[in-house]
Amino acid sequence: MTDTVFGAILRGDIPCHRIYEDDHVLAFLDVGPLSRGHVLVIPREERAQLHELSDESAAALGRVLPRICRAVLGATGATAYNVLQNNGSLANQAVMHVHFHVIPKFEETDGLRMSWQAGSLDQGEALAGDIRARL
Amino acid sequence: MTDTVFGAILRGDIPCHRIYEDDHVLAFLDVGPLSRGHVLVIPREERAQLHELSDESAAALGRVLPRICRAVLGATGATAYNVLQNNGSLANQAVMHVHFHVIPKFEETDGLRMSWQAGSLDQGEALAGDIRARL
Repeated sequence: MTDTVFGAILRGDIPCHRIYEDDHVLAFLDVGPLSRGHVLVIPREERAQLHELSDESAAALGRVLPRICRAVLGATGATAYNVLQNNGSLANQAVMHVHFHVIPKFEETDGLRMSWQAGSLDQGEALAGDIRARL
Repeated sequence: MTDTVFGAILRGDIPCHRIYEDDHVLAFLDVGPLSRGHVLVIPREERAQLHELSDESAAALGRVLPRICRAVLGATGATAYNVLQNNGSLANQAVMHVHFHVIPKFEETDGLRMSWQAGSLDQGEALAGDIRARL
């Protein structure tokens, strides 16, 4: 992958409002927040998309997410929030280094705004079998 | 927390199109998919929201997400996808048991549809300090 702004933040070449770090993970405030307390949680491992990440990095990210969410809720007073991780430009990924957004939601008109148009599942067992076979 | 449909799925009282399970995690197809291959990944631990989850469950969820994403991409041919985890009714959570959505994105009009209205960060270091103090 090519270098990204998050790579520069990890190296300390660009400053950030850091909230957490360990051997695998760095978390900091998003400078273009969707709401107050919008945080980015990234692996030190430089991978563009989640499916490319090592088990070790992915487990470290997962482990710390609840703690970070508790701290964001405590500091902002939010009680609802979305955790979002986008992969690919088509899926709204802007920086090509894996990142989880933690986005507090205070009212309908702030935070992450989605349109949820659920379909129905067709031939589910054939699809599930195909996915299972790849795991 | 009260029992949910995911609790019933975990007990085997309601069937699902299972794609993965281990001691901490179950993954299955969403019956109301936003796109082909929309998968739900849930902890066996019964907690409503992510910030309530144990480190152990959260790490296990994180660890397996990349593998599940690889299998979903392989089976569907998608190259873009969103991973989403909603907390609270205001944030679009419908089932009050922690779940990560893995949602393939094939074109603009399917999958997860979002409106991204970024603001600007104000007094970031004060907010970051408040969050850090709670971690």
